[in-house]
Amino acid sequence: MPNYTAPTKDIQYVLHEVLDISGANTPGYSDLDAEFTEAILDAAGALASDVLAPLNRVGDTEGCKLENGVVTTPTGFKDAFAQIKDGGWPGLDMPEDFGGQGLPYVMGTAVGELFSAANQAFTMYHGLTHGAASAILVHGTDDQKATYLPKMVSCEWTGTMNLTEPHCGTDLGLMRTKAEPQDDGSYKLSGQKIFISSGDHDMSSNVIHLVLAKVPGGPEGIKGVSLFIVPKFNINTDGSLGDHNGVSVGSLEEKMGIHGNSTCVMNYDGATGYLLGDMNKGMRAMFTMMNEARIGVAMQGLAQAEAAYQNAVLYAKDRLQGRAVTGAENPDGPADPLIVHPDIRRNLMDQKSFIEGARAFMLWGASLIDAGHKGGDADAEGLISLMTPVLKGFLTDKGYEATVNAQQVFGGHGYIEEWGMSQFTRDARIAMIYEGANGVQALDLVGRKLAQDGGKHVMAYFDMVKTFCKSADALEMQEFTTPLKAASKDLQAAGMYFMQNGMKNPNAALSGSYDFMHLFGYVSLGLMWGRMAQASLKALANGTDDPEFHKNKLITARYYMARQLPMTTTLLKRIESGADPVMALSAEAF
Amino acid sequence: MPNYTAPTKDIQYVLHEVLDISGANTPGYSDLDAEFTEAILDAAGALASDVLAPLNRVGDTEGCKLENGVVTTPTGFKDAFAQIKDGGWPGLDMPEDFGGQGLPYVMGTAVGELFSAANQAFTMYHGLTHGAASAILVHGTDDQKATYLPKMVSCEWTGTMNLTEPHCGTDLGLMRTKAEPQDDGSYKLSGQKIFISSGDHDMSSNVIHLVLAKVPGGPEGIKGVSLFIVPKFNINTDGSLGDHNGVSVGSLEEKMGIHGNSTCVMNYDGATGYLLGDMNKGMRAMFTMMNEARIGVAMQGLAQAEAAYQNAVLYAKDRLQGRAVTGAENPDGPADPLIVHPDIRRNLMDQKSFIEGARAFMLWGASLIDAGHKGGDADAEGLISLMTPVLKGFLTDKGYEATVNAQQVFGGHGYIEEWGMSQFTRDARIAMIYEGANGVQALDLVGRKLAQDGGKHVMAYFDMVKTFCKSADALEMQEFTTPLKAASKDLQAAGMYFMQNGMKNPNAALSGSYDFMHLFGYVSLGLMWGRMAQASLKALANGTDDPEFHKNKLITARYYMARQLPMTTTLLKRIESGADPVMALSAEAF
Repeated sequence: MPNYTAPTKDIQYVLHEVLDISGANTPGYSDLDAEFTEAILDAAGALASDVLAPLNRVGDTEGCKLENGVVTTPTGFKDAFAQIKDGGWPGLDMPEDFGGQGLPYVMGTAVGELFSAANQAFTMYHGLTHGAASAILVHGTDDQKATYLPKMVSCEWTGTMNLTEPHCGTDLGLMRTKAEPQDDGSYKLSGQKIFISSGDHDMSSNVIHLVLAKVPGGPEGIKGVSLFIVPKFNINTDGSLGDHNGVSVGSLEEKMGIHGNSTCVMNYDGATGYLLGDMNKGMRAMFTMMNEARIGVAMQGLAQAEAAYQNAVLYAKDRLQGRAVTGAENPDGPADPLIVHPDIRRNLMDQKSFIEGARAFMLWGASLIDAGHKGGDADAEGLISLMTPVLKGFLTDKGYEATVNAQQVFGGHGYIEEWGMSQFTRDARIAMIYEGANGVQALDLVGRKLAQDGGKHVMAYFDMVKTFCKSADALEMQEFTTPLKAASKDLQAAGMYFMQNGMKNPNAALSGSYDFMHLFGYVSLGLMWGRMAQASLKALANGTDDPEFHKNKLITARYYMARQLPMTTTLLKRIESGADPVMALSAEAF
Repeated sequence: MPNYTAPTKDIQYVLHEVLDISGANTPGYSDLDAEFTEAILDAAGALASDVLAPLNRVGDTEGCKLENGVVTTPTGFKDAFAQIKDGGWPGLDMPEDFGGQGLPYVMGTAVGELFSAANQAFTMYHGLTHGAASAILVHGTDDQKATYLPKMVSCEWTGTMNLTEPHCGTDLGLMRTKAEPQDDGSYKLSGQKIFISSGDHDMSSNVIHLVLAKVPGGPEGIKGVSLFIVPKFNINTDGSLGDHNGVSVGSLEEKMGIHGNSTCVMNYDGATGYLLGDMNKGMRAMFTMMNEARIGVAMQGLAQAEAAYQNAVLYAKDRLQGRAVTGAENPDGPADPLIVHPDIRRNLMDQKSFIEGARAFMLWGASLIDAGHKGGDADAEGLISLMTPVLKGFLTDKGYEATVNAQQVFGGHGYIEEWGMSQFTRDARIAMIYEGANGVQALDLVGRKLAQDGGKHVMAYFDMVKTFCKSADALEMQEFTTPLKAASKDLQAAGMYFMQNGMKNPNAALSGSYDFMHLFGYVSLGLMWGRMAQASLKALANGTDDPEFHKNKLITARYYMARQLPMTTTLLKRIESGADPVMALSAEAF
């Protein structure tokens, strides 16, 4: 059975030595000194290791059950959920007005990694509630906020998001779910939604569904979509629970992974719902959830990679097999541990350099969200809007790849379910798909975000890289900035290719969109490694009391620059080959 | 439920228009005219589509069962196995003396792709029997051949290979299974073997285990390992079955995939065995099976990719979602099919260009085996020995990646087991692990095969690429040869780097071994695409009656050159970064 230990030291390093959050101008950040954040991470880490991680395989093997319309979660989930609620974890970064702890989003993200790494399927129950509560917070009326938020922030009630229907996922304009207006201002919703994570379960007294639907007679397609609040149990005027609403679970999906989460087919049969936000602006309201959810999913990619990596390292140090090519390192034992072999190290270093870079990227992204939302920094908001598809697409693709690599370290044992390495890959696989499949992220990036506000944000990104390199070169950091500059140049060349060709032939840009998303991801992790190298050089120069830690960061930074970042060359070549290779074959010839 | 259609036309194309097998000098090849091979492929294809493919998901969901020491296979497997036996398929390329059909190995490979694509878990039952029979054919005494081969060639009895023990997989020198010599010349085997594919089941009257074990008092480590034949039921002198031997199934492994195959823990408790081949030369004998098995596993990578790709294409043509960026292509429908979107095409073209290149690589490799074994061509034998780790490592890694890409086309539905796309990835995953994990293939390639016979075979490979490019340039094929030459130059530079650095620092070579294996794979598929382009240009020049087919080959060749082959640049950079990035971190710092 796999282990999990919270990487508190690494998170603290990013928060304080790399991002210097307590020195940032963002409201609320001045409270986040190292002692305070460590206390939070330690408490969350203990819960993750001791309570959630042991339930990860239980969730995978038992799964959820639907009997007589009632969904039961795996053994132990209910108790664990009670502990999460009691600790106030779901409302960590929610407003104090509604019972939250009022901490910044960056802390929610840092803690979220620990919970998600320990048990992704479990963590989705409160993760989605958080997203639904955020949508109500932004778009709800005062009454709606008062009715729903206190109970959702505490997770006494959980939340869901209902977008997909059997015949439409990405293209929501095709949706068929209807919302008929009633005389009292409410609506009656009818239709079927699929892939509803945490759709129903036995861990909360109510489930608040946010449902996209069309009001008959409204505009065609996506312009006629509105968002509705549909509680599982109707809520009486005194706040107590009333009748069961006209919503039921059609079935539970049998999935490749995240078995511990109840993925439901939801049937709405004249269920009472309430408009959330403006009529026919449902997509805008939903995107409040979606953007948050996309960052949350990016984090799942990182989290599963971390959990899998930890176990691969333990195995590589423990399993004796073969001898180091340069001479026995464990001469008294029957063989050397796997970790002496260069190819095992290559595999582990690929994982490690990705994970640590991705963590810095995630937390930096979360700090941009705080700067935008709490600090009113429009540039930060623009930048995170640009980076969201990169975070989601790159971190989930590479996170999945990392779990597959971790599984590979185990040889045949990696294929046996009992060892738990298969589960990491099966759970991580969904993150590349949900909240917008990664191809859709690439489309969002190249088709929309690049040109947003006249291309201002991508120019700001390049300026930021340039400024960093300049400051780093002043510190003689050329071994890090030289590869980073080369990679950044590849990214700029790709952007230039799109600008020069995309207008007259959109396919020329879209054929390279996926490569561009990865290229952007590689450069961003390169920038993060540059910053980490800078932070660690500074710590070493200042006489840190843990020089090994910082030296190891420098070693890992060098690995990333030498063996990961060169991928940008190939990605640029792919992009510059344009539309013809991709579009030339007729559809029939596939 | 997924479909499968045998890609007969593509196989025929490779056999006849690319490899021109019936024109080759290899004994037996002159019989292989296009009509004959098509008849074989059609018959096998019908069996694959109609009998094996429908059982693929049955095998996945039911799995095998162990009750009271007896293993039962999933519903329908027994009948299907009877049909495979009745058709004589297991002995297709086995000698007629022992009841086989005496066809060349290349035909066994071509047919093997169809069976494996339709149902990998099922096909392993006769696939492993083939490997075990080959080992007896090469290393057995006349008595052993007479006793075992006729029944194994017909699959009345099936075979297994027993290498791995709980504490040792790659490093077989650590093995503990003992073989005590008996007065009658037989041995008593005791020990435990794990991960034994097809270890026991209800589809044959006997199971012939080939078991590696140590005779007490023999040399230490791998030099003291011998190979033994251990039948499940002892065989009486008249050939009838006697008592149950001292071998039993300890348990069935619960695996990530290939659930339809019974992967057993086998316990040997004083089981009677017979030495196969020379004492203490067990590894040599086992490698007869292993090399064949590695080629067979390479083929599984290709086969699962093909099966997954076919279903991704069907879905991409069928599923309506969004509109083409250049204007609606299905204006009367609610949306356009997925296949209009550039990123979906990019995904499908990645799969297609891999699969068709890999098929040519596989069949060319199989023709080298025939040239070596049947034709006595030592150069061919040396070349396939060099290429075996490349085939196994590259085709299973890229084949797995292709199944993941195919799953991605389905969006959320790809994650739901009912659609069957998850199974392709779960089944394909094992191919990267068994018969020597791919890291071990890379070690074999760089640590052993490159320098074999003084580096003669790798030089021959480069000469072959050069010769091809020269002949192709004479036909004005520079659009294909220019990228191929560049990639081949990267491969040569990597080889040069190993030569210059590997002697004084073996880690400098081994740190790049995995990248080198992939680099070799990319160049080899590039060579195959060059050859296919040449064959199709020739067909078009000669006025083929199917110009579209050949034009599409050229389009796919261009895609491969433009978007896959550039990977060699990055791989070379990784290799040339040497040992330091990989080896610098202390083991404790992971």
